[in-house]
Amino acid sequence: MNVLLLAGGGGGARLACGLQDVLEPGELTVVANVGDDVEVLGLQVSPDVDSLLYALAGLIDEARGWGRADETWNALSSAGEWGGEDWFRLGDRDLGLHLVRTRALREGKPLSAVTAELAARVELLTPILPATDDRLRTQVHTPAGTFEFQEWFVARGHRDEVEDIAYEGAGDARAAPGVLQALERAAVIVVAPSNPYLSIGPILAVDEIRRAIEGRRARSVAVSPVVGGKAVTGPVDRMLSRMAGGTTPAHVAARYEGLIDMLVIDEADAPADAPVELVVTEALMRDREAAGRLATTVLEAACG
Amino acid sequence: MNVLLLAGGGGGARLACGLQDVLEPGELTVVANVGDDVEVLGLQVSPDVDSLLYALAGLIDEARGWGRADETWNALSSAGEWGGEDWFRLGDRDLGLHLVRTRALREGKPLSAVTAELAARVELLTPILPATDDRLRTQVHTPAGTFEFQEWFVARGHRDEVEDIAYEGAGDARAAPGVLQALERAAVIVVAPSNPYLSIGPILAVDEIRRAIEGRRARSVAVSPVVGGKAVTGPVDRMLSRMAGGTTPAHVAARYEGLIDMLVIDEADAPADAPVELVVTEALMRDREAAGRLATTVLEAACG
Repeated sequence: MNVLLLAGGGGGARLACGLQDVLEPGELTVVANVGDDVEVLGLQVSPDVDSLLYALAGLIDEARGWGRADETWNALSSAGEWGGEDWFRLGDRDLGLHLVRTRALREGKPLSAVTAELAARVELLTPILPATDDRLRTQVHTPAGTFEFQEWFVARGHRDEVEDIAYEGAGDARAAPGVLQALERAAVIVVAPSNPYLSIGPILAVDEIRRAIEGRRARSVAVSPVVGGKAVTGPVDRMLSRMAGGTTPAHVAARYEGLIDMLVIDEADAPADAPVELVVTEALMRDREAAGRLATTVLEAACG
Repeated sequence: MNVLLLAGGGGGARLACGLQDVLEPGELTVVANVGDDVEVLGLQVSPDVDSLLYALAGLIDEARGWGRADETWNALSSAGEWGGEDWFRLGDRDLGLHLVRTRALREGKPLSAVTAELAARVELLTPILPATDDRLRTQVHTPAGTFEFQEWFVARGHRDEVEDIAYEGAGDARAAPGVLQALERAAVIVVAPSNPYLSIGPILAVDEIRRAIEGRRARSVAVSPVVGGKAVTGPVDRMLSRMAGGTTPAHVAARYEGLIDMLVIDEADAPADAPVELVVTEALMRDREAAGRLATTVLEAACG
């Protein structure tokens, strides 16, 4: 059964692992957010692609939820001492990947091809497809001004309330090679419990991808990023409250109008009304086993 | 007393420390070899500039003789795992500097300006001037073919006998800002016990520098890189034997014909004949104190 996951952030990486664990090798394809890609110290960093790569390859720091296990931080510390920027946390092992990717991108390879090469290096059987090879960057409008995503999220600690989101470059962005074919092939489309504005929004801002999902034959299931009305991590509850008017399942489902058939919510958010079918389960992925259970619930609901 | 040191490699860094220790702050200026600069993993690495910077700032790994103390190697290891080149040993702390420098060079700053900024960061009072801001690369001709310096030295372990040396770009290279002024100002010019072909040769290949030294008013003193007819480190003895016909003081002095007034040699190489005045001392710099004693001997000989 071909399953396509739209994913970004820690929740996306965790559900990707759960789905990979319960599906046969090669059945899962992940389309990754690139809206929070950033250039740091001259290196091209793709945090969501990397979280997926590290998580699916078993390299991620499970406790931290991003970056590599057994990490050291000496290069960044040194760069700071020499006057370089050190606001974006790049570990030494992580840097090795960014060096290799940046060089390949500078040689003209598209991000999708570079990502496939990296995945092949760790013998990953789950394709990770960046939503687009074109430049697409999430910009955050706040009372304090407009910021690039990482500047707002990391450097400013996402303290500024978000008034609006823009996806710079989305108008011209094409789906990366393989994305539309994977959407066409998928029996189930899953939207990860990622931030609808920051992680899934940039993927859906690529017109070809949005249209393909709107015209889907597959069942499409989103997992709510909200548990008990609150974010598991990050600012999603604050953003939903301010920009959508609340954090109920109906508010979450409205972010994906026309794009999903079901919404999986946590028991803490039930009962609820929503314009799509609701599936109530234990949605918090406390560990890899819980992610696998959630993945099974999602797939059973979609196929039921 | 203004002293100008021409330096490259480990011997250059050690004598630079010795001279810095025995001179007043600001009296020493070092002109550094850039012929073995190399691009690795998309980063601009200047090994001789960095050895001087690390040594003079007290950051160098004394035992290894290059790179930073308390170093880790995780980024390079990771880069190798992801398919990147890992033949050139770059430590994590070292990488921090290369990231900062590479970014500044890409923004169009000349190497001399970037080096001055780095030196200011560690409050170094000894200016380190790259011989040139222009591209100048040492190429090594061997029976196995012609190699870029680092490819021959590191990747091939300098096992191929050297038949000839070329300095690519030297014909068009101008002295970096400050070099000619420092030569003009110097009361003493010191040539470090560095490899005449690989470390000092590329500096002297810059025509403006060679002419300035040929027309010097200062006393010019070289320290032989040979002790007891053998290299302290590296391939200098093999290169002198093959290309100059021997490793005696006369063979060393001939590399600097018209450019030096005296040659400092180790007791193990005396007595000897040479076309310049010989100064016999304990030339092996076993530690920082020995480097200071050698520096004092060099300066006393030049001024005596």
